[in-house]
Amino acid sequence: MSKVQKIPKATITRLSMYYRQLELLEFDGYRMVSSEKLAWLCQINPAQVRKDLGYFGEFGVRGVGYDVIDLQAQIKKILSVNRDWNLGIAGMGNMGCAILLHRNLALRGFKCVAAFDNAMDRIGMPLPGGMKVQDIKELKTTVRDLNIEIGVITTPASAAQGVANLFMEGHVNAILNFAPTRIDSPNCCLVENIDFTVIMDILTYKLHQKMAA
Amino acid sequence: MSKVQKIPKATITRLSMYYRQLELLEFDGYRMVSSEKLAWLCQINPAQVRKDLGYFGEFGVRGVGYDVIDLQAQIKKILSVNRDWNLGIAGMGNMGCAILLHRNLALRGFKCVAAFDNAMDRIGMPLPGGMKVQDIKELKTTVRDLNIEIGVITTPASAAQGVANLFMEGHVNAILNFAPTRIDSPNCCLVENIDFTVIMDILTYKLHQKMAA
Repeated sequence: MSKVQKIPKATITRLSMYYRQLELLEFDGYRMVSSEKLAWLCQINPAQVRKDLGYFGEFGVRGVGYDVIDLQAQIKKILSVNRDWNLGIAGMGNMGCAILLHRNLALRGFKCVAAFDNAMDRIGMPLPGGMKVQDIKELKTTVRDLNIEIGVITTPASAAQGVANLFMEGHVNAILNFAPTRIDSPNCCLVENIDFTVIMDILTYKLHQKMAA
Repeated sequence: MSKVQKIPKATITRLSMYYRQLELLEFDGYRMVSSEKLAWLCQINPAQVRKDLGYFGEFGVRGVGYDVIDLQAQIKKILSVNRDWNLGIAGMGNMGCAILLHRNLALRGFKCVAAFDNAMDRIGMPLPGGMKVQDIKELKTTVRDLNIEIGVITTPASAAQGVANLFMEGHVNAILNFAPTRIDSPNCCLVENIDFTVIMDILTYKLHQKMAA
């Protein structure tokens, strides 16, 4: 077991939200923000803001609030987004292209440095930034050459495990899997699965609760 | 406040996972499954399985386990996926097409019945199933005519609120927003935001914890 304190995933999600609101506040010229205002902007209650931030230290001043710029820096550090991360994407269909061309990912330091596919009509296809779609066979060596830390899988389900194995052989630290299948991995590689059907299940559950309330 | 018992979101996510494993177990010919086996398949602990299901009733038989088919039906009912849902998608870029063509969504009863865009070169574009991309101006009336219950927004951030307003004027019950901006909505419409940059923040946080452990 890890010695690190167990922080709820919802707290991490909210930190990411707080950070986005702090950016907007800075843009609007605010220097300080109260937990009440930050909570209101995020549509949650102020006690939750204080509790979430309390896991990581004392960031506010009682009766004054939080320093908008300082708290951004603290949250970036907590989330480890105070640096760039190199991404490689395997599977250049609609989903792969959507991730590759996602402007906000690049702006936030998630740099797509390589893209792969196994289809002959996609390999060699020019991409923004002077990149080209590479043959999936080059994945393992490219991961090492370009220091790719996060592998993104946007292939069909049937190809996902094979591609994951290639990413792991190249020693990525994490895999973000959009293919609708689970990936087996040794403990050394972190795997996050984003399954749209699970997202839809959560939505319909909430919708049903709302309609029944 | 709702009278409905507050169930953790993580529980709902896991129910969705259990359901997928139960489908596979049925496919493999299993009639019964223990909480230990179901937990092992989902890479969690058995107490968690029992706790999650315990929120909703007594589904298992002590010493025997859960009926694979019956538990699927129960979970489908809990998640409200024991029926089809009509979806409309606004924004036919890469992300919109990825959702529209997502085979598993349709298989699970999430039917994309209309697609919209405002770009002249996309309007009229043929889509699978005999559909065509419709002008965004037709959104409100189409939502009513086709009984669209869930609006999916895959437009750029700048267009998202306007499109959300159209969906709400057409009286959808829920909006799934992939545009990297928050949607303002009255309480009557459920909005779920899927922000890839937030997903990446959670991933890098976990990665950092793992590396530090």
